[in-house]
Amino acid sequence: MTLSPLQEARYEYQPKLPGMLRQGINEISVKTGEETSSVADQDKIKALFPNTYGKCEITFEKGQNTSENKKQVVGVILSGGQAPGGHNVISGLYDALKATNKDNVLLGFKGGPSGLIEDDYIEMTDEFINQYRNTGGFDIIGSGRTKLETEEQFEIVTKVAAKHGLTAIVIIGGDDSNTNAAVLAEYMAEHKTGVQVIGCPKTIDGDLKNEDIEASFGFDTATKTYSEVIGNIERDANSAKKYWHFIKVMGRSASHVALECALQTQPNICLIGEEIAAKERSLADIANYIADSVEARANNGDNFGVVIVPEGIIEFVPEFSALIAEINELLAGDKAEEFNSLVDWATKEHFIERGLTDKSMRVFALLPEFVQKQLFLERDPHGNVQVSLIESEKLISSLVADTLNERKIKGTYKGKFSPLHHFFGYEGRCAFPSNFDADYCYSLGYNAFMLIQYGYTGYLSKVSNLAAPAEEWVAGGMPITKMMNIERRNGEDKPVIRKALVELDGKPFNYFVSKRKEWSVKTCYTYPGAIQYYGPSEVCDATTKTLALEQK
Amino acid sequence: MTLSPLQEARYEYQPKLPGMLRQGINEISVKTGEETSSVADQDKIKALFPNTYGKCEITFEKGQNTSENKKQVVGVILSGGQAPGGHNVISGLYDALKATNKDNVLLGFKGGPSGLIEDDYIEMTDEFINQYRNTGGFDIIGSGRTKLETEEQFEIVTKVAAKHGLTAIVIIGGDDSNTNAAVLAEYMAEHKTGVQVIGCPKTIDGDLKNEDIEASFGFDTATKTYSEVIGNIERDANSAKKYWHFIKVMGRSASHVALECALQTQPNICLIGEEIAAKERSLADIANYIADSVEARANNGDNFGVVIVPEGIIEFVPEFSALIAEINELLAGDKAEEFNSLVDWATKEHFIERGLTDKSMRVFALLPEFVQKQLFLERDPHGNVQVSLIESEKLISSLVADTLNERKIKGTYKGKFSPLHHFFGYEGRCAFPSNFDADYCYSLGYNAFMLIQYGYTGYLSKVSNLAAPAEEWVAGGMPITKMMNIERRNGEDKPVIRKALVELDGKPFNYFVSKRKEWSVKTCYTYPGAIQYYGPSEVCDATTKTLALEQK
Repeated sequence: MTLSPLQEARYEYQPKLPGMLRQGINEISVKTGEETSSVADQDKIKALFPNTYGKCEITFEKGQNTSENKKQVVGVILSGGQAPGGHNVISGLYDALKATNKDNVLLGFKGGPSGLIEDDYIEMTDEFINQYRNTGGFDIIGSGRTKLETEEQFEIVTKVAAKHGLTAIVIIGGDDSNTNAAVLAEYMAEHKTGVQVIGCPKTIDGDLKNEDIEASFGFDTATKTYSEVIGNIERDANSAKKYWHFIKVMGRSASHVALECALQTQPNICLIGEEIAAKERSLADIANYIADSVEARANNGDNFGVVIVPEGIIEFVPEFSALIAEINELLAGDKAEEFNSLVDWATKEHFIERGLTDKSMRVFALLPEFVQKQLFLERDPHGNVQVSLIESEKLISSLVADTLNERKIKGTYKGKFSPLHHFFGYEGRCAFPSNFDADYCYSLGYNAFMLIQYGYTGYLSKVSNLAAPAEEWVAGGMPITKMMNIERRNGEDKPVIRKALVELDGKPFNYFVSKRKEWSVKTCYTYPGAIQYYGPSEVCDATTKTLALEQK
Repeated sequence: MTLSPLQEARYEYQPKLPGMLRQGINEISVKTGEETSSVADQDKIKALFPNTYGKCEITFEKGQNTSENKKQVVGVILSGGQAPGGHNVISGLYDALKATNKDNVLLGFKGGPSGLIEDDYIEMTDEFINQYRNTGGFDIIGSGRTKLETEEQFEIVTKVAAKHGLTAIVIIGGDDSNTNAAVLAEYMAEHKTGVQVIGCPKTIDGDLKNEDIEASFGFDTATKTYSEVIGNIERDANSAKKYWHFIKVMGRSASHVALECALQTQPNICLIGEEIAAKERSLADIANYIADSVEARANNGDNFGVVIVPEGIIEFVPEFSALIAEINELLAGDKAEEFNSLVDWATKEHFIERGLTDKSMRVFALLPEFVQKQLFLERDPHGNVQVSLIESEKLISSLVADTLNERKIKGTYKGKFSPLHHFFGYEGRCAFPSNFDADYCYSLGYNAFMLIQYGYTGYLSKVSNLAAPAEEWVAGGMPITKMMNIERRNGEDKPVIRKALVELDGKPFNYFVSKRKEWSVKTCYTYPGAIQYYGPSEVCDATTKTLALEQK
């Protein structure tokens, strides 16, 4: 195996713990806070979690460790998409576990939740874990998207846990995985298995966030990586002065990633899905909004620019969602066969025109042909439109081009418009964690073990006051049920952790709004450059702009 | 203007000069080397450059500065695509110029060579230049692609030079721009204008390289930036274990960028255009070669991988180039109208089938429909196929998918193949220069001024021994004519700098060949991570693998 110089150097990095966890295992005591209740639907959530609901918030503080002296056998899984720092959660967990008792055991179940079902695991050793400290990726044990949610799965997990003598399971995942962690914790408590369940908040999307969880891990590193390359593209745009770059970034359900990247790089335009939904913007509104910037800049002689688009943007446009729903309806069941039997696109277009409402037909007519065809020709096994396959950055730049052509005919716009397209997602999910994520994740893992050691279950590992230096961070735990409410999912009422969308009255968005008019006309680009792990503290220890603004 | 913390910190960086330039301006003397002759076509080149041909190689060394004490007014232009470090060439040039005489003047002509024609310039000051030290981009004065090559342009440049009292012009550019620098130098000498011309070797493509010029600037930073994100994608692939990533990197005429990225990241496959051309590989050969890796890895349970593809790859495939030539012929002049008048694609297909040779028709039939249509429907103003618009990474993955489907039918392949696509180019051309490029570029600029000060013209600023620490670098100059030969360009014999392709008997390629079989089956990924500007020297001062292998 060939290691890069950076990987070798990063092995030497000692992640920073919150001050109260630095005295050594024997000097960590618990301070119990208030009883908690869920953010909404309290009665329903309480009824669903009789054994784990309403527990107290806790924080750790300096003091005599009074936890029970028993051998711990902990299982850990990584769930869902990669996020930088996952390896550090596991190494923090391992270090606290071994510091407490050398005979404690950490088992890593492989390939995500399915590893727990299939009993596919590895026992962690110093030698093994040392290869992964402060590195990106989830390759230490792999990850997967199997959902642990059925009674049948829980029975199998219980058997696997009994086989290994597991005392606890740590689930590192996003909102869905932590919802499932809470349900599993309740199951384990109800069945008196003696297995505790602790969750850790992971997702680069930044949408697992609430008054208790200030940030999900990975968001910091991923957005800094995207901002690095976006800044480089901005500098290229401002040097060549001839292209408009449309840059899509990951984030399907929420636009936190796009917003953070915009705060870091100050592009000409950044679309925020939540705003588009709230203000019921149409595709034409979006195209006009961007075209206004293109035109204003062209009037200044600047025929170049940068636009950031969140991955899920078109799903936030109400008229587009309505169109998709109609198409799904139009092709449901037998009707798909009829459509498929039509010989050519022209005939199919008649079929479409007859089938859609006037309003949706107007939206459909606006779309470039490659998207029109994609909507009807590429459908998933259930016959539904595959919205996620639509290259929204190309769709939007194409609508902007149409709008500019109309303005050219009218004589109001005289510039040149050459769009280029980019998509950044996989580029940032496995970067070496920033110092922030390396520290935060290690602390989350270390802290998760302390929650286990003190006997808690159904808790999320919580490290807060994150905009301050690590010394001042606060470590503790929060019952997952506190973050839950009831939502309708696939026709059923389900208890779930509420997904955090970009708040349109929040400080990060408001700051963006206060600046974006100027950014859309002038060239105010900021070039963050590559993540630095060494060097001046202001360069290598800065948090996200989102966190800084939220906590200011 | 909002500066990122890294940008502020990088202003403080003092680039390292070669040892012999560190004693101060008064301690730099010239050591004259041997007379030079061009790499080929000596008589023809000599006849074309009677005033500048055959001059001596020179190096600088410690000793009394004996250069003429006259006021220098130097003009500088950036030419062609962006490359990290351009700003440092200018700041090195400026610092040497001002250290020699405070009254010396540096004029930056804006927007590339056209700035020299249009007399669009800015006079450099400390305050202005300090904003650009150690930063990426060419935004200091912009760049452009106008070629300075006609007698008429030279006359205008002579007038502009006379107006400002220019004593020298520095051209920062690639092989074409430096060829033009040599022609301009000859013109200026022949017409006794007193204007010297010095070139600096720039291009991220790495194809301006020869026995004298060990590396063009920008290649180091750009390839490290691409390798950072490629490494991140590899780690993601190895964590999720479900995608094959096809990654296209810039480099149309040569595959140096792809090769360097492969050496840094050890992907499963990297295609090298020069090899494909030399071995006359077909598209089917390429698809089979990649499919073999996919199949072997699937047999090991690894349905994921990473493939690096140079941007210009399909133009290296002989049968594809033949097809393009036939299509251009088929649609030349009036025939395009006939083709365009055909009502639908099916009819057009008959036209194509009649028009192509059997061999080219077989190649055409192999292509996915989106490429077939692109070849015929999207043509440039001269009616030619726009090969550069073809998404070669998608073309190749599509051919691999077809091949795998055939193998599936035969029963030899049983894996899953889910390809994803990426293109990296604009992401790296304007990154903050690595310490190497920051030092190298500053040295090139500083050195360029010393060449001016000692009265040289038609020289390329040359800094060598680059795999050693900067202290041991050797500064000097080389007549550009030494690097020239005669090539056929647009039907005319032209003196040009020979473009450096990947040498199939060179050390970097041979090292790659010795490893690639193992890499294609096993997972040997290396994760370089983000460029570091601070920290351990082995992390932040390493050169490219290409350079290290070449000089070992």
